[in-house]
Amino acid sequence: MKKIGIIMGSDSDLPVVKKAIDTLSALCIPCEVHIFSAHRTPVEAAEFSKNARKNGFGAIIAAAGMAAHLAGAIAANTTLPVIGIPCKSTNLDGLDALLSTVQMPSGIPVATVAIDGAKNAALLAAEILAVGDEALAQKLDALRCDGAKQVLEKNAKIEAEFNK
Amino acid sequence: MKKIGIIMGSDSDLPVVKKAIDTLSALCIPCEVHIFSAHRTPVEAAEFSKNARKNGFGAIIAAAGMAAHLAGAIAANTTLPVIGIPCKSTNLDGLDALLSTVQMPSGIPVATVAIDGAKNAALLAAEILAVGDEALAQKLDALRCDGAKQVLEKNAKIEAEFNK
Amino acid sequence: MKKIGIIMGSDSDLPVVKKAIDTLSALCIPCEVHIFSAHRTPVEAAEFSKNARKNGFGAIIAAAGMAAHLAGAIAANTTLPVIGIPCKSTNLDGLDALLSTVQMPSGIPVATVAIDGAKNAALLAAEILAVGDEALAQKLDALRCDGAKQVLEKNAKIEAEFNK
Amino acid sequence: MKKIGIIMGSDSDLPVVKKAIDTLSALCIPCEVHIFSAHRTPVEAAEFSKNARKNGFGAIIAAAGMAAHLAGAIAANTTLPVIGIPCKSTNLDGLDALLSTVQMPSGIPVATVAIDGAKNAALLAAEILAVGDEALAQKLDALRCDGAKQVLEKNAKIEAEFNK
Amino acid sequence: MKKIGIIMGSDSDLPVVKKAIDTLSALCIPCEVHIFSAHRTPVEAAEFSKNARKNGFGAIIAAAGMAAHLAGAIAANTTLPVIGIPCKSTNLDGLDALLSTVQMPSGIPVATVAIDGAKNAALLAAEILAVGDEALAQKLDALRCDGAKQVLEKNAKIEAEFNK
Amino acid sequence: MKKIGIIMGSDSDLPVVKKAIDTLSALCIPCEVHIFSAHRTPVEAAEFSKNARKNGFGAIIAAAGMAAHLAGAIAANTTLPVIGIPCKSTNLDGLDALLSTVQMPSGIPVATVAIDGAKNAALLAAEILAVGDEALAQKLDALRCDGAKQVLEKNAKIEAEFNK
Amino acid sequence: MKKIGIIMGSDSDLPVVKKAIDTLSALCIPCEVHIFSAHRTPVEAAEFSKNARKNGFGAIIAAAGMAAHLAGAIAANTTLPVIGIPCKSTNLDGLDALLSTVQMPSGIPVATVAIDGAKNAALLAAEILAVGDEALAQKLDALRCDGAKQVLEKNAKIEAEFNK
Amino acid sequence: MKKIGIIMGSDSDLPVVKKAIDTLSALCIPCEVHIFSAHRTPVEAAEFSKNARKNGFGAIIAAAGMAAHLAGAIAANTTLPVIGIPCKSTNLDGLDALLSTVQMPSGIPVATVAIDGAKNAALLAAEILAVGDEALAQKLDALRCDGAKQVLEKNAKIEAEFNK
Repeated sequence: MKKIGIIMGSDSDLPVVKKAIDTLSALCIPCEVHIFSAHRTPVEAAEFSKNARKNGFGAIIAAAGMAAHLAGAIAANTTLPVIGIPCKSTNLDGLDALLSTVQMPSGIPVATVAIDGAKNAALLAAEILAVGDEALAQKLDALRCDGAKQVLEKNAKIEAEFNK
Repeated sequence: MKKIGIIMGSDSDLPVVKKAIDTLSALCIPCEVHIFSAHRTPVEAAEFSKNARKNGFGAIIAAAGMAAHLAGAIAANTTLPVIGIPCKSTNLDGLDALLSTVQMPSGIPVATVAIDGAKNAALLAAEILAVGDEALAQKLDALRCDGAKQVLEKNAKIEAEFNK
Repeated sequence: MKKIGIIMGSDSDLPVVKKAIDTLSALCIPCEVHIFSAHRTPVEAAEFSKNARKNGFGAIIAAAGMAAHLAGAIAANTTLPVIGIPCKSTNLDGLDALLSTVQMPSGIPVATVAIDGAKNAALLAAEILAVGDEALAQKLDALRCDGAKQVLEKNAKIEAEFNK
Repeated sequence: MKKIGIIMGSDSDLPVVKKAIDTLSALCIPCEVHIFSAHRTPVEAAEFSKNARKNGFGAIIAAAGMAAHLAGAIAANTTLPVIGIPCKSTNLDGLDALLSTVQMPSGIPVATVAIDGAKNAALLAAEILAVGDEALAQKLDALRCDGAKQVLEKNAKIEAEFNK
Repeated sequence: MKKIGIIMGSDSDLPVVKKAIDTLSALCIPCEVHIFSAHRTPVEAAEFSKNARKNGFGAIIAAAGMAAHLAGAIAANTTLPVIGIPCKSTNLDGLDALLSTVQMPSGIPVATVAIDGAKNAALLAAEILAVGDEALAQKLDALRCDGAKQVLEKNAKIEAEFNK
Repeated sequence: MKKIGIIMGSDSDLPVVKKAIDTLSALCIPCEVHIFSAHRTPVEAAEFSKNARKNGFGAIIAAAGMAAHLAGAIAANTTLPVIGIPCKSTNLDGLDALLSTVQMPSGIPVATVAIDGAKNAALLAAEILAVGDEALAQKLDALRCDGAKQVLEKNAKIEAEFNK
Repeated sequence: MKKIGIIMGSDSDLPVVKKAIDTLSALCIPCEVHIFSAHRTPVEAAEFSKNARKNGFGAIIAAAGMAAHLAGAIAANTTLPVIGIPCKSTNLDGLDALLSTVQMPSGIPVATVAIDGAKNAALLAAEILAVGDEALAQKLDALRCDGAKQVLEKNAKIEAEFNK
Repeated sequence: MKKIGIIMGSDSDLPVVKKAIDTLSALCIPCEVHIFSAHRTPVEAAEFSKNARKNGFGAIIAAAGMAAHLAGAIAANTTLPVIGIPCKSTNLDGLDALLSTVQMPSGIPVATVAIDGAKNAALLAAEILAVGDEALAQKLDALRCDGAKQVLEKNAKIEAEFNK
């Protein structure tokens, strides 16, 4: 199975990114975690990206805050699908990271998820791998069923509490 | 080859969506175009989405404006990768569509591209198919080279004009 | 008397929604509470909505955060009045939920109240029932009088404290 | 049948409000149109609102721009459902009117629709009347069917054009 | 000397408004404090405003949050200068109150100060009275000198600490 | 009668400012118009402001766009009431000018009106002069009556057209 | 004299950037103009930046729109001062480019000017060179005087027209 | 070596500004710290700025919050490079300070860094001095290498933890 690269721009993004790692792990999808900074270690970020396809990656998740260039910088160096997680930093509630990640110019797409949306980034990566992997697709469908079941159970509890 | 579904919420989104159709067409990727409204034809939208994987789709692009629920409504009914294009409408410059598309709750990802970013949506869809299709991956790399070449040519012209 | 449906997208919305339940309860208006997710249990949400009128509902209140599609998804399946409460989540201060709820496309209205404005959602539902229920209208007028009286009492206290 | 009051803050709002008048008219719902300004003719606005219920109104639509106080000023004087249309003016793309209309304090609800969303305001008013009027409810359901049919027809045209 | 009216929309605004009371008090400017709600006690608010000039007021300060209509509602009923303080409430960081207060339509001005800017509201009221009161003008000039002196002293301390 | 100073930061603001000049002129209030730039002619701006009170001014209106420092720079040099008009420039719809004008720090108030709200700035200046000028107060009241009358007339026309 | 590098992300930025070229040209400061894209020609952008100091550049101006990474990408590869011009594109009024340019993480500064503020970018570059170039500093001071003179002349015209 | 002036608008900005002082100090760049308020001590601010070049300053850093005019007021009085730090205050998350600092009108540039971006302001000042100081340029390059090294070390730790 292809691997998912999980890149964060700084170790301060780890608490957010951890949810992506755990989600992929629960799906038994192999992943590799790195800290590459678009601005402080641009060479390493580019090097990783250029070789990602031939190194067995199927998609790359990139998480960064503020003027979040990381996802774009990775996308500039690969035609693998790149998923951007805009991370909320101390100011502006993540709006800066969201716009910096999603408003990519024509030609270099970044698949952007919600601010701090690490779990969805992992699920999106899994969905991408599942396009060519029926078993994984079934796992994802099962996960959806579980999600629905959880909502239904919570609903049952709420109904029991309020609707007598 | 898997097909790409291109769904728009209203025919007023066609001028934007056209760029996605053209981009996929240039890459010889088969696509199917539909108008499904998350609010006016929710049954058709759900039906399409539920059957998309078994009908041979590899990813779905959904374009909508204002309180843009279309991509999310489709994503709720499939575990195929769903790509959302937030479309600018008459007010708020597309910010409403962007937030309605990207801020998806945990469990149901939508891969969001820039406001009116139809070309990138198509390229992202192509990148997703290319994960399992080496030939397409090479086509995308070639397209990138072309993109780079165009910038270099424009650069050459600008340099010739200004740097004497 | 017709019932009010109170739907929340997740049990994390209960602290907000509780104020709507209490307000309707204080007005002796019957209500039914459910958790339906536009994205995780779309079928249940649609089913409930389609049958709501014939099941004796007079209006539906829907509370959700982030890319808050719930009110719109319910409104897509009924011509009962649907009242949307945009819930503040961890980021963007509820602006995402507000725009996702209020900016509905032409044809499918959602009556949107303030961010986390659950009490007003309940009052609006009551006002809707009161259009055909003179006794309830009088109750609402009395509640308004109480509200005014409270302000007048607070005013009296403030005047006593500051205007000697 | 109860009447719908349609109040605009200025005659410059007529082009927007016209869609509400036409929508109600098409549904054969009687309406009364007025210009009352929350700031320039507050007495008339209050007078109208206080007497609206006993004068046979079932709901009031209020359209205003900028610091749009009109809907709130009307809601302060009646417990009829008040529907607010935030109108876009020359600056800020209607965001000022939206926030001024929707962010009502606890106790005085305003049912807010999209910026310039006059058609939806009228439909919402109709839905409110339809709570106690089965025939009108059926008309609204029929209108929805028409809306769906239009989307399906446009879809058929698009499919014919693009999916060969 | 003319009095300053200080009106707040709710007693929850008192912590903010207190700074205005204290500032006027320190300047020995008589003021009267009231709670009037634009929406819950509109009659009282209007009554106060209509009679304010003949009751000896020289300006009115109005503080309110969310869809802050109070200042506008007062300004609608008097041609005395009305000063609006937009109060931050739980969501949107006061932006809703700011736009609701400052974006007044042509004909009815509200002199808006910063979000929670109660001290400046009081100073502005004092400046207005000082237009016809040389002694007060001198007091305000003296206060400015004090303000400058405080900055200079802090500067001296900082310089002593850092510039050796 | 005291004069009103009308200062604009650039001659490109004249179309906006013209409405202030005309409004004061119609009220027979003497005014003086200047272009002073907070950044390009700060000395002249400061000089004018420092001497404004003794030169017979009663209030100063300052209009500027972008990072609109003009009103603040004038307010820093006088304790006369300073009224700020945030002017919309080519980008950001005037939000930059609004925040730069209204968010003044404690101690130096600027009475801010709506974006491009020149007429209201003039009316506010007139209201300030009218605090000590009964005749002017009556003129302003009369103007308000006229404003109301115009709305009533427009209302009559609309009623005649739509309410048969 | 050191050169100024003027880099634009796309030739569509030329109309904005032209003002920077003209301003430097008027100051007889040598400049070199290039189109480098952070995403399409990242190698060329990096190469240029890494060698800029030894190639005789004193500062680099970078203009880009949308998720404007160009200035940051250049700053990542040089410790020369990098000046960022956020360019307005079709949506969001340049706010995306502003936040993407200015909100740089700690360690890699970008000196950001106003949206489309190309003239100021050039002046800032000139000010940087002038730190070590007294003659240029005097030129800049003279330019300031000219700017002031122009304002004074416009002021004289306005005064003549309005203050009789 | 030329000095860097560090000006803050209020001593409440010191916690932010401290990082700039420390950064310059670590680079052995002499700096002078002052509190000057654009509004409370405008004369001192102007005086300092006018004489800054001849007093041996090479650049000035100005930090202020809210309607942050300080950097602009300093830039109006010198052609030295002025670096603006928009400081977050209690409301609006620093957006007011950012727009007030960066949106300078043509002719008077302010080099703006991120909200609360004091360290980058210091680095930018150092980069400006380094244009004419090879040794300092090498120090900055070394600092960059250190920054990169730190990222690489953190990367190594993360890789060791997650990629087994």
